[in-house]
Amino acid sequence: MASTVGIPIICNAAVSWEAGKPLVIEKVEVAPPKAMEVRVKIKYTSLCHTDLYFWEAKDQTPLFPRIFGHEAAGIVESVGEGVTELKEGDHVLPVFTGECKECVHCKSEESNMCDLLRINTDRGVMLSDGRSRFTAKGIPINHFLGTSTFSEYTVVHVGSLAKLDPSAPLDKVCILSCGISTGLGATLNVAKPKKGSTVAIFGLGAVGLGAAEGARIAGASRIIGVDFNPNRFEGARKFGINEFLNPKDYDKPIQEVIAEKTNGGVDRSVECTGNVDAMISAFECVHDGWGVAVLVGVPSKDAKFITKPINLLNERTLKGTFFGNYKPRSDLPSVVDMYMRKELELEKFITHRVTFSEINKAFDLMVKGEGLRCIISMDD
Amino acid sequence: MASTVGIPIICNAAVSWEAGKPLVIEKVEVAPPKAMEVRVKIKYTSLCHTDLYFWEAKDQTPLFPRIFGHEAAGIVESVGEGVTELKEGDHVLPVFTGECKECVHCKSEESNMCDLLRINTDRGVMLSDGRSRFTAKGIPINHFLGTSTFSEYTVVHVGSLAKLDPSAPLDKVCILSCGISTGLGATLNVAKPKKGSTVAIFGLGAVGLGAAEGARIAGASRIIGVDFNPNRFEGARKFGINEFLNPKDYDKPIQEVIAEKTNGGVDRSVECTGNVDAMISAFECVHDGWGVAVLVGVPSKDAKFITKPINLLNERTLKGTFFGNYKPRSDLPSVVDMYMRKELELEKFITHRVTFSEINKAFDLMVKGEGLRCIISMDD
Ligand SMILES: NC(=O)c1ccc[n+]([C@@H]2O[C@H](COP(=O)([O-])OP(=O)(O)OC[C@H]3O[C@@H](n4cnc5c(N)ncnc54)[C@H](O)[C@@H]3O)[C@@H](O)[C@H]2O)c1
Ligand SMILES: NC(=O)c1ccc[n+]([C@@H]2O[C@H](COP(=O)([O-])OP(=O)(O)OC[C@H]3O[C@@H](n4cnc5c(N)ncnc54)[C@H](O)[C@@H]3O)[C@@H](O)[C@H]2O)c1
Ligand SMILES: [Zn+2]
Ligand SMILES: [Zn+2]
Ligand SMILES: [Zn+2]
Ligand SMILES: [Zn+2]
Repeated sequence: MASTVGIPIICNAAVSWEAGKPLVIEKVEVAPPKAMEVRVKIKYTSLCHTDLYFWEAKDQTPLFPRIFGHEAAGIVESVGEGVTELKEGDHVLPVFTGECKECVHCKSEESNMCDLLRINTDRGVMLSDGRSRFTAKGIPINHFLGTSTFSEYTVVHVGSLAKLDPSAPLDKVCILSCGISTGLGATLNVAKPKKGSTVAIFGLGAVGLGAAEGARIAGASRIIGVDFNPNRFEGARKFGINEFLNPKDYDKPIQEVIAEKTNGGVDRSVECTGNVDAMISAFECVHDGWGVAVLVGVPSKDAKFITKPINLLNERTLKGTFFGNYKPRSDLPSVVDMYMRKELELEKFITHRVTFSEINKAFDLMVKGEGLRCIISMDD
Repeated sequence: MASTVGIPIICNAAVSWEAGKPLVIEKVEVAPPKAMEVRVKIKYTSLCHTDLYFWEAKDQTPLFPRIFGHEAAGIVESVGEGVTELKEGDHVLPVFTGECKECVHCKSEESNMCDLLRINTDRGVMLSDGRSRFTAKGIPINHFLGTSTFSEYTVVHVGSLAKLDPSAPLDKVCILSCGISTGLGATLNVAKPKKGSTVAIFGLGAVGLGAAEGARIAGASRIIGVDFNPNRFEGARKFGINEFLNPKDYDKPIQEVIAEKTNGGVDRSVECTGNVDAMISAFECVHDGWGVAVLVGVPSKDAKFITKPINLLNERTLKGTFFGNYKPRSDLPSVVDMYMRKELELEKFITHRVTFSEINKAFDLMVKGEGLRCIISMDD
């Protein structure tokens, strides 16, 4: 095969032309990577709720046409000028939030919110020149989260790529590039439940179950799952959740129900729904004196978090996290290692597999709330 | 002097008969302590904003007639049945939040919100029998915060008394029984600024300056003071605060002003106003990625804390504290020690002194926002 380095690649991509309308597989032209960029051949991608929100564009800024996708694994095809950490053939996870290693956040022990490569849901272009690397039908197509993995090839800033152990199976670890790591880290790095503690998880999608997996690994003795969708309950048993609460089954706020069942509240809660009412419940259901609530879900633009200050003064802690506080380049390899050492189980998150041409099935499944992660194989 | 043990004591107390009206020095009868109670001769007391709130009873449940006062130091006169840790002559600080040493909170390393003796602003009676120990003009007078220190003698649960080093000067350490310790602990125990960090303090009353004192002790390199009342600024210089912001001087939210002046926000903020807008500003002015905001002020009953969830998801932490997370009996002796070792300076908090019969002057000063702490000597 002739080298593609330095020249545009024509390949298939699933283009979203209009909010909420099925994606269309189109021939797109993918420009070569510019300075500090990497062109990646995507091998596997999966669908996360954040894709769905911006595709539906109900409460979010619409930006179309766009190539969505940010949970994926692939192989470096070529690198742009100045890229020294990666080379052709390296296995990588693209990540929606990057790590420049130079800004005040990257240098802080506590933050992973890189000033340069922080998530930006409204930007549809590359940072260096404010332009897209994708063209279809003669027009530029917007990027999404700097990753746009619903394409056979994509261009990503080097700071948004975590280098992988080449023996890690891409069709499994691809889900570590967003949802699972986000939930896992929210528990392990931010909520930090002590051994024997009680943890409530709001939202039993892949992110919430990643958080539950974190609670299991941390040695929580009681994990309570909260979801509107009772279909989620059966699958969640595999994650060590053995108490389920559906807010629709009660005529009082679910935080009160949880407080009654737990002698005043849980030790930790992790919210993985994106719904602001669930955020408030997740905060108010933690025990006074020591409870910590961690928010993970991406809320709608106009959402307001409202609580009585006394809930805070009663010594509760409220925190939020992006990507489970993992620094993508520095920390993701250790999460992949946890999987390779079998401490972290990924197989139970993967409930469906489709080929790239069937990508709209993955959207249907998520809209219906069926399954957890649907892996989309790019090699049909 | 004949022993008063076991019999009622007739003494002077400043009774608040009606919301917002001057206190009246009355002869009150103080019943002997019942089981697990201690009768204390108050030597010095001071006025804290929380007294003022409940005396004004604008946004709080009115409960009158009442004997206010909760910042004080005194000497044990007699103890009730079952009290073994204290005896006649012991020097003590009464504290508005107690420590039973047996409940789940007292046994937790993190909480000081004792289940039994936690602050209860609406209770005007003793726990054991639901009755008052004070009678004036033949009617029972309500207690306040379990302390009611605006009386020559008061009855307090043993769990709400911290035993003092007898060499500690009562006319100074009395202010450690509420405000100063609250602010100090909010910074040292909860906000925990690192050496060299930037700290914003909202509200430059005694509590806020206690918080500033904590920031100074922790080695903060920049302490920014925020207050509506510019009269507070001059005095605050003694506390290492050398930048002042008055929200009234700006036509945009003060959190935006702070973010501009500090490259995105302060590392820590401590809110000591009781005003919910200040709480929101204090939260929103901390740096994303690592900022921690600590709420201390007691809000009005209907106050609502409102913020966009994205402010949390951007990795800010919001916490509240009562009494600076100090466990009163276990931890206050070490705070008194800090003063005795001259690490903590108390003298600069004491701006006024009055005799008991002039107690209404202390109220006037606080209403006008003049000075910090006014010490009221019970021995006229
Ligand atoms: N902060 C981050 O870094 C980050 C990263 C990835 C995903 N996310 C967000 O995490 C959230 C979860 O993602 P996912 O892929 O697991 O989504 P998902 O749709 O698979 O799961 C969400 C679950 O929440 C439930 N739910 C919704 N509202 C609820 C409520 N009020 N109470 C109880 N349950 C409720 C739904 O029924 C669903 O089962 C989304 O908001 C997503 O955007 C955040
Ligand atoms: N949580 C606790 O354990 C605890 C203990 C003691 C006191 N408190 C509370 O702490 C607060 C402070 O007490 P204090 O005795 O220092 O009171 P204080 O009245 O002496 O000081 C409060 C200061 O806040 C300023 N202020 C009010 N609203 C403001 C705003 N929106 N922005 C900026 N400044 C504002 C006032 O001008 C004043 O200078 C009170 O709410 C009190 O009830 C809490
Ligand atoms: Zn995602
Ligand atoms: Zn960076
Ligand atoms: Zn007080
Ligand atoms: Zn207790």
